[in-house]
Amino acid sequence: MTQLEEALRLHEEWRGKLEVAAKMKVDSREALSMAYTPGVAEPCKKIHENREDVYKYTMKGNFVAVVTDGTAVLGLGDIGPEAAMPVMEGKAVLFKEFGGVDAVPICLDTKDPEEIIETVKRIAPTFGGINLEDISAPRCFEIERRLRDELDIPVFHDDQHGTAMVVLAALTNALRVVGKNREEARVVVNGAGAAGIAISKLLLADGFGDVILCDKAGILQAGMPGMNPAQEEMSRITNKEGLSGSLADALRGADIFVGVSAPHIVTREMVSAMNKDGIVFAMANPVPEIMPEEAKAGGARVIGTGRSDFPNQINNVLVFPGLFKGALKARCKITEEIKLNVAHVLANLIPAEELSEENLIPYAFDPRVADAIANEVIRTASLHQ
Amino acid sequence: MTQLEEALRLHEEWRGKLEVAAKMKVDSREALSMAYTPGVAEPCKKIHENREDVYKYTMKGNFVAVVTDGTAVLGLGDIGPEAAMPVMEGKAVLFKEFGGVDAVPICLDTKDPEEIIETVKRIAPTFGGINLEDISAPRCFEIERRLRDELDIPVFHDDQHGTAMVVLAALTNALRVVGKNREEARVVVNGAGAAGIAISKLLLADGFGDVILCDKAGILQAGMPGMNPAQEEMSRITNKEGLSGSLADALRGADIFVGVSAPHIVTREMVSAMNKDGIVFAMANPVPEIMPEEAKAGGARVIGTGRSDFPNQINNVLVFPGLFKGALKARCKITEEIKLNVAHVLANLIPAEELSEENLIPYAFDPRVADAIANEVIRTASLHQ
Repeated sequence: MTQLEEALRLHEEWRGKLEVAAKMKVDSREALSMAYTPGVAEPCKKIHENREDVYKYTMKGNFVAVVTDGTAVLGLGDIGPEAAMPVMEGKAVLFKEFGGVDAVPICLDTKDPEEIIETVKRIAPTFGGINLEDISAPRCFEIERRLRDELDIPVFHDDQHGTAMVVLAALTNALRVVGKNREEARVVVNGAGAAGIAISKLLLADGFGDVILCDKAGILQAGMPGMNPAQEEMSRITNKEGLSGSLADALRGADIFVGVSAPHIVTREMVSAMNKDGIVFAMANPVPEIMPEEAKAGGARVIGTGRSDFPNQINNVLVFPGLFKGALKARCKITEEIKLNVAHVLANLIPAEELSEENLIPYAFDPRVADAIANEVIRTASLHQ
Repeated sequence: MTQLEEALRLHEEWRGKLEVAAKMKVDSREALSMAYTPGVAEPCKKIHENREDVYKYTMKGNFVAVVTDGTAVLGLGDIGPEAAMPVMEGKAVLFKEFGGVDAVPICLDTKDPEEIIETVKRIAPTFGGINLEDISAPRCFEIERRLRDELDIPVFHDDQHGTAMVVLAALTNALRVVGKNREEARVVVNGAGAAGIAISKLLLADGFGDVILCDKAGILQAGMPGMNPAQEEMSRITNKEGLSGSLADALRGADIFVGVSAPHIVTREMVSAMNKDGIVFAMANPVPEIMPEEAKAGGARVIGTGRSDFPNQINNVLVFPGLFKGALKARCKITEEIKLNVAHVLANLIPAEELSEENLIPYAFDPRVADAIANEVIRTASLHQ
């Protein structure tokens, strides 16, 4: 049995990777009268008097909806809400295992952005936070922006910001390893979708001085036809030298490649044309933009991928469990400041003496990660209270 | 500390009566690659090929949304979605403890019936069934009817049908005790809301020959002003003799009183005016329409309430866990036939030799109940395949 066949067999055995468990036994009339009627009327009345008490007496404060419309699931694309369920369940498993956060999938039978926004707002009283997942770009930008503005609970599109935060953490350490600084290094981000745009924005916010964003049509430049509004905005704030051309043109003289795009689109020659001590994060999954050994042969010094079978796995699971754990505790929204601070805390979990080409970022199962991130969220939020 | 204070303290300690648990440990790269990427892509692809496979590879088939808009919570009325959370969590606890069904609250920030219908339809891909709860009448009728028609999963408004099924079971046994038959007995149902209407309909469907439905304005009769459409329909199919008057008028010469209304509105004198061997189910909670000792003093022979501290507790928890357990297994909707058959199976769990005035219906914690009901759902559904 191959590994993939084994995964399928396990999913059939599990019939769902989550279950809902009661925190108490209800095995007597007394227990029933505490957890249900008549006792349950007491917390209801308290919350009716003061809505904030919902955090005191219910699961809301530790309960996250993992919301998708199934339009951009893994590399599989628009496979629909039912077919997205295994991924959303998996995400909820990771929320619990890494962050102690209770999460459930909410897979939506609509692709209309207004309807998605409306639906999430209507179910929001139940939840302490909303994790948007696998919603295709550019729809995801407006959906997240509106929900962030219109709800009083944290809303986070992990494909954008989780990825961006882990990339920023790994790049921060990669720059330390090669001894370059962010103001001068040229970064080429390939893939102008949800992840690529969020990565570019976060790098700029962190002081990176030269970010070039590429998509299938090549380097994004202001006024280029065929861009969606999010890409147009990016074309104005990236590519400060107004370059045009292909990904290969962009990489000539670049210091950093960040790929969130497609398998095998970077060649050894393209890596060779980069500056000395090149950093290559080839994160297309499961097959990267260039395999690590090829990137190495092309002269790259620091290499990361999305895979667990190579060094430097740049994996979202490092961020979202601790991030929500902290945001739920602090009852705060997830700001730019939190994203930046958390990325740096994540980078700093690798002490200088352990930092190396092959050790940029904590291992996914490093038990320090979630709490370090949660505490940084709480600390940053407290600065503004 | 009073019992109610203790319930409040426990709710604060629990901070939510439910948690979401992973069915597997994710403590290694291998485990992560099975439950999440890359392994998770396999069940996604299978479900994308054949949507029915969502029942094979995900939690959908055992996952119920307990949906409310918070408009008719316990006896507290329209207290809003947040304040309804403790009840919905409690319901989910009972789903798991009694039926092994995974359930979560979905408390909606809208009271508009169209928006409720729309929202439930949009989140439906996630769930194997929908339990509607504490939605006020008459809005609940249209909401349930539309969702039942428009979704392919079971939809059940427990306040209506759960109550009706338990009442029918208890009445079936009460009639056995007093030796009367359903075709001739006169039943007076007081409270023409969700529960009272559903009870009246189910009794008629089961062959009861004389049902009179009363509300605050007295006996419902065709053409009476001030009725909502659901009450109008009931006025045409109940009260076959076209009686008019008060509840007291209705009870004169009645065999059975079923109260789903308000405390203390039935007097000893009203019970005395009923026929010999009267049956009084006074189910207003926590204070019944008439206290059992008063009903007894008035001459009633069989008495039931909604409370656990008197004999014959007529409690919804007897039905919904097993009902959903069966409907989820059979992947069937909940038909009139299922409701009737389940009520009779529930009644028949009390063998003739154990049946008495004080033992009409199984105890809420009787371990036989859920599976007996689930099996009857599955059996009845199989008759039509």
